[in-house]
Amino acid sequence: MDRVFNFAAGPSMMPLSVLEKAQKEMLSYEGSGMNVMEMTHRGSLYLSIFDKTERLFRELAGLDDSYAVLFLQGGATGQFAATAMNLSALGNCAGYLDSGNFAHIAMNEAAKYTQVACLASTRDINYRSVPVLPEGSIRPGMSYVYMTTNNTIFGTRYSRIPDTGDTVLVADMSSNIFSEVYDFTRFGAVIAGAQKNIGPAGLTIVVVRRSLLGHALEITPQIMDWSIMDKKGSMLNTPPTYAIYMAGLCLEWLKDNGGISEIEKINIQKSALLYDVIDSADFYRGAADPSSRSRMNVTFFTRDADTDAKFVREAAESGLVNIKGHRLVNGLRASIYNAMPIEGVERLCDFMRKFEKENR
Amino acid sequence: MDRVFNFAAGPSMMPLSVLEKAQKEMLSYEGSGMNVMEMTHRGSLYLSIFDKTERLFRELAGLDDSYAVLFLQGGATGQFAATAMNLSALGNCAGYLDSGNFAHIAMNEAAKYTQVACLASTRDINYRSVPVLPEGSIRPGMSYVYMTTNNTIFGTRYSRIPDTGDTVLVADMSSNIFSEVYDFTRFGAVIAGAQKNIGPAGLTIVVVRRSLLGHALEITPQIMDWSIMDKKGSMLNTPPTYAIYMAGLCLEWLKDNGGISEIEKINIQKSALLYDVIDSADFYRGAADPSSRSRMNVTFFTRDADTDAKFVREAAESGLVNIKGHRLVNGLRASIYNAMPIEGVERLCDFMRKFEKENR
Repeated sequence: MDRVFNFAAGPSMMPLSVLEKAQKEMLSYEGSGMNVMEMTHRGSLYLSIFDKTERLFRELAGLDDSYAVLFLQGGATGQFAATAMNLSALGNCAGYLDSGNFAHIAMNEAAKYTQVACLASTRDINYRSVPVLPEGSIRPGMSYVYMTTNNTIFGTRYSRIPDTGDTVLVADMSSNIFSEVYDFTRFGAVIAGAQKNIGPAGLTIVVVRRSLLGHALEITPQIMDWSIMDKKGSMLNTPPTYAIYMAGLCLEWLKDNGGISEIEKINIQKSALLYDVIDSADFYRGAADPSSRSRMNVTFFTRDADTDAKFVREAAESGLVNIKGHRLVNGLRASIYNAMPIEGVERLCDFMRKFEKENR
Repeated sequence: MDRVFNFAAGPSMMPLSVLEKAQKEMLSYEGSGMNVMEMTHRGSLYLSIFDKTERLFRELAGLDDSYAVLFLQGGATGQFAATAMNLSALGNCAGYLDSGNFAHIAMNEAAKYTQVACLASTRDINYRSVPVLPEGSIRPGMSYVYMTTNNTIFGTRYSRIPDTGDTVLVADMSSNIFSEVYDFTRFGAVIAGAQKNIGPAGLTIVVVRRSLLGHALEITPQIMDWSIMDKKGSMLNTPPTYAIYMAGLCLEWLKDNGGISEIEKINIQKSALLYDVIDSADFYRGAADPSSRSRMNVTFFTRDADTDAKFVREAAESGLVNIKGHRLVNGLRASIYNAMPIEGVERLCDFMRKFEKENR
């Protein structure tokens, strides 16, 4: 069985040891005679898996009971609406940092439920850098300020979390959660699809300061009401049981490998290796402004579109797959989430140097 | 590895051959070097899995392109809201058949978005039979009539689908979809959580007549807008990729076993075996009215609560697990979805006869 190095933007690679454990437990989890998918979510056996996963998440994030940790469904896209439904009543207008395609969609979705203000945008330069929060742009009575910590498509990242003072800060961390150390208590809420750094697709995580709960709009569907979901322990209805189990295995792997501070060092190293190759000669060109470069999604170009396509093809033949860039940027994109081993990045760097020599 | 017979109300048993296939493909799906969970949902490899699953679903259900088949998230509970958001603008009031706890919740959830009318209810007899649609109760201008084909908690089922004339009929089929032959074209929309008869939790299926689309309320979150999801092929955002793959394996298993008409025969046989034991002596007592008995959830009592508890305990010791009834009914409940083999039911019947002798 030859495994490949998968640079997809998500869903993407999972740790091999996690998959091996899931494989071993496929027909019978710990002698129970059933797979986790077959377990009733109300049973003590499944609840022990669920609770362990939440405990691991809280431990890694450094979160106490003043925050709810919710295991939901529907992806970050669902939470674009839910954020406004749950928090917009805290004020009269929600402020958005328009740092990428998903931030933009989030802002448009929120506008169905509340007045929104675009506080800063880099849309006119195709989001090649992240927009800085202008001083004084937060108006009195603002319900929250919304940001995206890492922009998957464009390969950008906020290197500093903006200071929003007393105004609640909400972050979409879908593409870099648990890849670097964040002080989660700086955020009123964090939303994240699991399928990049936490587990499989189909699980959406919401972290929310409990003191902010209880203000959902009347038209909020129950499954999107964070307050109800908190009271029900994320089990108003059947949660995505297997995805939560797999997330637990991934979080365990992360903890066993030293936790977030250790993986952050590796992620800095991995991304530096790639940016070094990109910057070392004229052949490659980074897509993102160097000041805003992501550690998770490295976006770059070769000379032209044909050469990009050749790169994608030949890389795949070498077992380095899914390096095609998103259609909003084109070019190439190597997504190197937590589960991408440094060997995969080294192999890609070697390939890039070889490809450069052959195509210069 | 000793597998158990799992009578949980859902999630519940899956076919062993399906789990074995998933186990075999865990580290590398068909030589791809990756698990299905690791695949980008936009790649041709994953799309072939997705398309095959939709094709199988359409084939089994007998649905042509005049219906959309959507693979969504959030459970039937999410679709309680989505149903009203997508269809209530077709009229001025939505009619509900209040046949159980979930029907009741669906009605209350819809009331956030539209005027609702309870057309008939058996709530006052704790839903021990299904309420019949009273003649003449459908008023002009009604947007839709909503029903639940099988009521998991109470163990009841509609043996005849009500005739709603020109008014759109919507059904929650979560607990008996694909367990018996339905003419899906009688319904304007069908919603179903996958975790009982189709696959793992975390996948929600919506079948909707395409001519009904395009009337979503303005406050509908994008992920709940059936029209948007149809246009995007259920991929507005990342779908629950692995749950869809597992559903595909389960549907393949169903087709290989003769499809719905064959499994229906087995399900009639399985439920008859249990009801025969229940009715054969005074020791057991069925919870549901015989006219409304479910083929999926067989609810019954022994003499008293202590004996029920003893039954649950001793059955579990014999490898027959999760037979405790829901707290709204108490007693016992054996859920026997498609994946429960007839051997499991025979084992339970044997156990019931033995338990009766020992505790009479």
